[in-house]
Amino acid sequence: MKKEDLKAAFEMITGTGFTKASGFEVREFEEGAVTLVLTPREDLTQFMGYVHAGVVTGLADHAAGAAYASVLPEGRVCLTIELKINFLKPATGDKLAAEAKVISGGGTIGVVHSNVYGEKDGVRTLCATAIVTLRAISAG
Amino acid sequence: MKKEDLKAAFEMITGTGFTKASGFEVREFEEGAVTLVLTPREDLTQFMGYVHAGVVTGLADHAAGAAYASVLPEGRVCLTIELKINFLKPATGDKLAAEAKVISGGGTIGVVHSNVYGEKDGVRTLCATAIVTLRAISAG
Amino acid sequence: MKKEDLKAAFEMITGTGFTKASGFEVREFEEGAVTLVLTPREDLTQFMGYVHAGVVTGLADHAAGAAYASVLPEGRVCLTIELKINFLKPATGDKLAAEAKVISGGGTIGVVHSNVYGEKDGVRTLCATAIVTLRAISAG
Amino acid sequence: MKKEDLKAAFEMITGTGFTKASGFEVREFEEGAVTLVLTPREDLTQFMGYVHAGVVTGLADHAAGAAYASVLPEGRVCLTIELKINFLKPATGDKLAAEAKVISGGGTIGVVHSNVYGEKDGVRTLCATAIVTLRAISAG
Repeated sequence: MKKEDLKAAFEMITGTGFTKASGFEVREFEEGAVTLVLTPREDLTQFMGYVHAGVVTGLADHAAGAAYASVLPEGRVCLTIELKINFLKPATGDKLAAEAKVISGGGTIGVVHSNVYGEKDGVRTLCATAIVTLRAISAG
Repeated sequence: MKKEDLKAAFEMITGTGFTKASGFEVREFEEGAVTLVLTPREDLTQFMGYVHAGVVTGLADHAAGAAYASVLPEGRVCLTIELKINFLKPATGDKLAAEAKVISGGGTIGVVHSNVYGEKDGVRTLCATAIVTLRAISAG
Repeated sequence: MKKEDLKAAFEMITGTGFTKASGFEVREFEEGAVTLVLTPREDLTQFMGYVHAGVVTGLADHAAGAAYASVLPEGRVCLTIELKINFLKPATGDKLAAEAKVISGGGTIGVVHSNVYGEKDGVRTLCATAIVTLRAISAG
Repeated sequence: MKKEDLKAAFEMITGTGFTKASGFEVREFEEGAVTLVLTPREDLTQFMGYVHAGVVTGLADHAAGAAYASVLPEGRVCLTIELKINFLKPATGDKLAAEAKVISGGGTIGVVHSNVYGEKDGVRTLCATAIVTLRAISAG
């Protein structure tokens, strides 16, 4: 699949289910590097008004999946085996952006670094940092 | 705070924001052991129809926070520092249940095991297993 | 390979390199559940006199690898993809014991819980808890 | 403590116990960024001849501890709460180098990225990537 097709396919997937309901959008889609954003709103927050850890993790994970998928051969998709994430600062801002970069993508196991930033008035703050491990499988 | 008050306070928190929007409910609330459940539905799923990793993680994390909060002295709440979670089976069923148990709760750092099960027709399947690290802070 | 042969093969492997130098020993070797022990000594400690995090992690990981290997079909071995470990109490005692149990072992990915206990005067203290993810490969 | 004193104190600590026995050496010691190296040898390896996961993790962790300690105020030391590490390539080479960088160091919790490289004939290969969470405590 060409990069434009891959991006379109990923945007279609993102426009369904949880990622649609949470307003995830694709900002950048390069080979091995994908950035997703969401706009914080009341139904995404925890009791202090920050974006809930589950949503932050979902953004980091979804970006990681796209980044690894972008380096796979045609006919291959991927699933998350496991992830780990440190929450460094309250997840808040006009936008939340998850930047995922493939660290290791050979064969059937992918490892992706995914950082989540809060963006407000032109300032970016690192809110969370994750490592995501994925497994490539046949799309069929 | 007495256990019944604690449970009520936690249910109030759970009835706001992301956890309300996702339909999280408290099934069991014991000292050091909390079980939360949700009912899978379309706006919580990923592209294959299973509950999204972000929602699964949110359920595991929210249960872990309640479990650690339940062993803290009055006037103390907690925040997640980090978590790691392995996804073992597709998260699906009539209900998804996260069972959190405090492994280490002394002082200012709590460590909680949180397992997520899919429940269907009386059968429980372990879908994900997590370790969550939390920090106790003053509620003020 | 029969269980006794498997155990013997694992003991041979454990009697080489780092695990030999650190005095790792097999205490129990069941299908899907392996316990290893070591005796703390000066060249395994960090500056406070407790067993170093690297050694504790090595014990937890080596036990996890054996536990997953014990459920694999003949001709398959395994490698650790990643692990995460929480250090709960100082690692000290007459013995340190890592108990590994396979949580998910199907196909090519294994997930193992590995707990490390300090043992002193008949009392066991949980020092560390880990989740280890492994990959099965052909032995050839 | 001045930077030179800090480095000397850390080298003294590294020259004891497990880190001495394993031949850990300080290559760089900057504020918030520390690189340690070791020379692979037979008593540090696993059965395939690569450096054992426990030793790789110990190097990553020890570098992380030094990096966080280097940004703490006088009279404070640190302990590892937890870590997670992905093993990407066989750990081998003339040298193994762990580069640790503090990502978040405020207050009482530090988060450090620690990457481990194999170095051979002037080529560096990323073998492992870790996130380490630490807690600051009083040195007394």
